[in-house]
Amino acid sequence: MHPLRVGLTGLGNVGAGVARLLLEQSERIARRAGRPIVLTRVAVRDPSRSRDVAVDPAIITTDPLAVATAGDVDVVVELMGGLCPARRVVHAALEAGKEVVTANKALLCEHGPELFAAARDRGRCIAFEASVAGGIPIIAVLAQSMTANQITAIEAIINGTSNFILTQMFRTRASYDDTVREAQRLGYAEADPAMDVNGTDAAQKLTILTQLAYGTRVLPGQFPVRGIDTIELTDLIYAHEMGYAVKLLATARLAKGQLEMHVQPTLIRHGRPLAQVDGAHNMIALTGDAVGQTWYSGPGAGQMPTASAVVADIIDVAAGRAAVTFRRLDVWSERTPCPLQPVADMYRRYFLRFNVDDRPHVMADITDILGRNGISLASVIQHEAPEPEAENGKGTPIVPLVIMTHRTTEGQLRTAVSELNALDSVRTPSVCMPVAD
Amino acid sequence: MHPLRVGLTGLGNVGAGVARLLLEQSERIARRAGRPIVLTRVAVRDPSRSRDVAVDPAIITTDPLAVATAGDVDVVVELMGGLCPARRVVHAALEAGKEVVTANKALLCEHGPELFAAARDRGRCIAFEASVAGGIPIIAVLAQSMTANQITAIEAIINGTSNFILTQMFRTRASYDDTVREAQRLGYAEADPAMDVNGTDAAQKLTILTQLAYGTRVLPGQFPVRGIDTIELTDLIYAHEMGYAVKLLATARLAKGQLEMHVQPTLIRHGRPLAQVDGAHNMIALTGDAVGQTWYSGPGAGQMPTASAVVADIIDVAAGRAAVTFRRLDVWSERTPCPLQPVADMYRRYFLRFNVDDRPHVMADITDILGRNGISLASVIQHEAPEPEAENGKGTPIVPLVIMTHRTTEGQLRTAVSELNALDSVRTPSVCMPVAD
Repeated sequence: MHPLRVGLTGLGNVGAGVARLLLEQSERIARRAGRPIVLTRVAVRDPSRSRDVAVDPAIITTDPLAVATAGDVDVVVELMGGLCPARRVVHAALEAGKEVVTANKALLCEHGPELFAAARDRGRCIAFEASVAGGIPIIAVLAQSMTANQITAIEAIINGTSNFILTQMFRTRASYDDTVREAQRLGYAEADPAMDVNGTDAAQKLTILTQLAYGTRVLPGQFPVRGIDTIELTDLIYAHEMGYAVKLLATARLAKGQLEMHVQPTLIRHGRPLAQVDGAHNMIALTGDAVGQTWYSGPGAGQMPTASAVVADIIDVAAGRAAVTFRRLDVWSERTPCPLQPVADMYRRYFLRFNVDDRPHVMADITDILGRNGISLASVIQHEAPEPEAENGKGTPIVPLVIMTHRTTEGQLRTAVSELNALDSVRTPSVCMPVAD
Repeated sequence: MHPLRVGLTGLGNVGAGVARLLLEQSERIARRAGRPIVLTRVAVRDPSRSRDVAVDPAIITTDPLAVATAGDVDVVVELMGGLCPARRVVHAALEAGKEVVTANKALLCEHGPELFAAARDRGRCIAFEASVAGGIPIIAVLAQSMTANQITAIEAIINGTSNFILTQMFRTRASYDDTVREAQRLGYAEADPAMDVNGTDAAQKLTILTQLAYGTRVLPGQFPVRGIDTIELTDLIYAHEMGYAVKLLATARLAKGQLEMHVQPTLIRHGRPLAQVDGAHNMIALTGDAVGQTWYSGPGAGQMPTASAVVADIIDVAAGRAAVTFRRLDVWSERTPCPLQPVADMYRRYFLRFNVDDRPHVMADITDILGRNGISLASVIQHEAPEPEAENGKGTPIVPLVIMTHRTTEGQLRTAVSELNALDSVRTPSVCMPVAD
């Protein structure tokens, strides 16, 4: 059978891993694809850079558009990342009749509808397993294995950097800033980790999973996204004391016909599988109306795990499976969107921490406000402060008061918290995190 | 597009679940399959039995072969279980040009080669996601998502009954016999649980996973299989004290070009994901040379989880994806088999328990024998017995001596254990379980 010819745009970390697999495991890959797969073109930014893979210099160019439209390329593997020029490269590839494999979550999140429409118009396919959760085949699970189900909940730890930082902060009892520096030193965080720690990366991945599971396009900015960048060690310790781990959790759940969707630092009860995912690992918990709950975990990033997913997609293109899957994907097609649940209606338990003056009637004032807002308390921690860390300027010590509420709406909670923050005895800012039940 | 017509043989627990999904979720299923899927024939053993699904009596027969060869059936879904008449039904279906979906692990394990050859000869496919681990899509993961990898290890908890019994024994500090009765009462164990608790069920599933991962056919009886039916509570408690959970673990691992394969009660260190799988759940830990380690867990049995897997296969047949996957499957084809590692060469750590006379020099005798066989000790527990439970008939109390060894071969260990069992001071039988590292 004639070989499948691969044009690779981007030879960074993941790109070099893909090239290595294609070059070094060609026999294995050909056997599984049913035909040889050959790397015929590679676009790089800087051809002079040394790399840990021996790509024939004759096939290297600095022009990704030339790769996307080359006559000797059947499938374009887009691993440049970012929106520009990735978007132009994918369009050019589809227009030139190529199939597309991409790991670019930002591109799909932002321009998915136009790219998928272009692929459908031309009878081509886009495969994107590597765009979410690296080595965990969650796209295939949603697109192929769970087709008998209505998915009712996705709960996912899909930012390895954030999970590494939260795990390390708690383990070493270190501050957020110190732990970020350690993560950078160990290669778990970028020099500028903003997209990872502010929740953007997890939110982009969640919009892709939401497309697959619910057929609903939700734009970034339409649902609450909070990162771990304001997390304090003390709250990880209080949560632990109450029986919970804090994770950056991405959630998309059906709640009475509406889609509850958010990315937030969230308390998860010890003993639940999601609470046990440590370090840079990812986990996705999927609930379907037939299958019940299933869990998928592993390396969510990294050179070879992500390359494994990209090459599986290339093999699927070669075998003809990617085309079948793409035809049957019901995504970015603007079919009956499931309405988003308004933030004020989200109905959960909450972990609250207030720094309060250690004087009479403070607890009464706080519980009075919560009670008048219909919020009841599940548990309260106020430790006797052996050496108060701070005082209010008039000699009264300031102590932390930690409250776990019963279920309430985010609307009720916000009203109560702003009343509480207005109290003389409460030092802002207070801390508020939801609990995953 | 013309509908896919389904003939179902077997309307037991899973069969009824499949019929319910096909009848009640026909709109959802048609959308995902790209064409309607209709149930046209059903074979049952006893048509008078009442069931929790409303199948039109006009399509019900007691003759599965009639369903397998019916003119208005495109795909035969075999859910009868057992070898006979399932084998004849599948052959008849393939000869009549039907596609086949089956959940029958025993059938695949025993007759996989002839059935797959028959399907290949006729250009038909066999889909079998539901044959291993119920709702966990482990077949698709191995056959489609991990194709860039050489799988280097499978470690699996794939018998829910055994895992439930082990979990409950430890939690409630109950005996094996009492816990089996409780499992039967709760529906987690069959009236005759032998196939589950003696390891046969897990071994059959492991042979299917081994086929997919290594292309090697290993027959039941060619590798060590031990069940949980001789487990004693005391060993679960000692293992816990040493930092391990005991699980019925099915392992197929590459070790220096050979395949190490066994099903055994195994100690797994607390903190490893496999140690945290409780109750009737299943988990498969897969290691690939590119992806690293990934984990898949969820309900390994049950009506709707298994029906979810069967219906996903039917949708794959309807969409044309099952045919692509089947063509590319490199299984039951007798390609370069990876040789099995001889049992005596298996190189692991071991948990040992001896009941010994509580008198001078016993520990010296035992450690001398272990030492002379090249086995070194990692840890030893001998608790002071407040009230000895037994004595040796001459007034000397008998106490348990628990030893964790460093890595040794099974051959060395067996020699040592038989020498130890021959000591006057050691009461047989002694207990020996491997440790998963």
